[in-house]
Amino acid sequence: MLRLYDHLFSGNGYKVRLLLHQLGIPCERIGLDIEKGETRTPDFLALNPNGRIPLLVLADGSTLAESNAIQCYLAEGTPLLPDERLARARVLQWMFFEQYSHEPYVAVVRHWVHTGEAERRPEEVTTRRARGHDALRVMERHLGANDWFAADRYTVADIALYAYTHVADEGGFDLAPYPRVRNWLGRVRAQPGHIPITRG
Amino acid sequence: MLRLYDHLFSGNGYKVRLLLHQLGIPCERIGLDIEKGETRTPDFLALNPNGRIPLLVLADGSTLAESNAIQCYLAEGTPLLPDERLARARVLQWMFFEQYSHEPYVAVVRHWVHTGEAERRPEEVTTRRARGHDALRVMERHLGANDWFAADRYTVADIALYAYTHVADEGGFDLAPYPRVRNWLGRVRAQPGHIPITRG
Repeated sequence: MLRLYDHLFSGNGYKVRLLLHQLGIPCERIGLDIEKGETRTPDFLALNPNGRIPLLVLADGSTLAESNAIQCYLAEGTPLLPDERLARARVLQWMFFEQYSHEPYVAVVRHWVHTGEAERRPEEVTTRRARGHDALRVMERHLGANDWFAADRYTVADIALYAYTHVADEGGFDLAPYPRVRNWLGRVRAQPGHIPITRG
Repeated sequence: MLRLYDHLFSGNGYKVRLLLHQLGIPCERIGLDIEKGETRTPDFLALNPNGRIPLLVLADGSTLAESNAIQCYLAEGTPLLPDERLARARVLQWMFFEQYSHEPYVAVVRHWVHTGEAERRPEEVTTRRARGHDALRVMERHLGANDWFAADRYTVADIALYAYTHVADEGGFDLAPYPRVRNWLGRVRAQPGHIPITRG
């Protein structure tokens, strides 16, 4: 049985929860509270020295970190991760875009709003909101010519970008200027086996 | 013929240059000066709406962005990107670690030192240096039990992490406390077909 160290609030954790559910893979879920430092205990650091969830532990005890790497591992051999060389590379392109140009802004501001940190660093929130809107504009532009982010179908790239985009409003991002993004969110939600971020 | 939009100072560009050279793949290189805004012109934004190098253009005109996605595309089918499912996922794990937990600190501070921006934001430099050292500590710990980052051999994960670690001193990072990282840098440099970051 797989074991997933996770935090319900985390979009990065949600990527893995959603994918496991859609692939019908059973998994034991262990919730850790990031705010209480539960990802920085000696026990957890022994599993993931980078001190972050999600962390997947395989049946043989091997560990795998980084939400998007875990997604690629789980989706290997399924339609959610294409085999074709360029299509596969494009899935990765959007996953790296998500971790570098989207998550540090859209997800981090949401986290700061949630913890109250946003009120203590208003200037940084303004800067990060602007960068988050840059990422949303890149997505809106891509969706002008495409229904999905890669391979002309629903893939783990869509899950990666959905995870924090669909809760961007919790970080004060208004998605009204991004009608294609909003329509794409609806298409992702309509996929078989979809579950909300609140479901453990 | 492949075409690579690149900037010689960029470690992200260097990942692709080094890999192309080691794989013996010919490629036309087009240098763009990030400081002069050459990655934000309408012509370049038409190729990469995210306005970043490196960008690879394939023979049929298809484009591929994100240094680590480009690496995976080019290394597909070679020993530099393992086929085995978990080994491949571990390569990705370290590449996502590089883009999320290493590059925004080690590379960005180097860039700010280079442009003079570091003097204008001393507090942010201090914070980012601390996070950069967190990443270097995670690497040092991993290299205590491993010669390479994934698959027990030199892979694109090593290239991804080498790119900015080997010039970390340019951002004021002292690598003296990381002897295993320094030894690993030497092992990467000793690989056949290695070229320095200064070579276009």
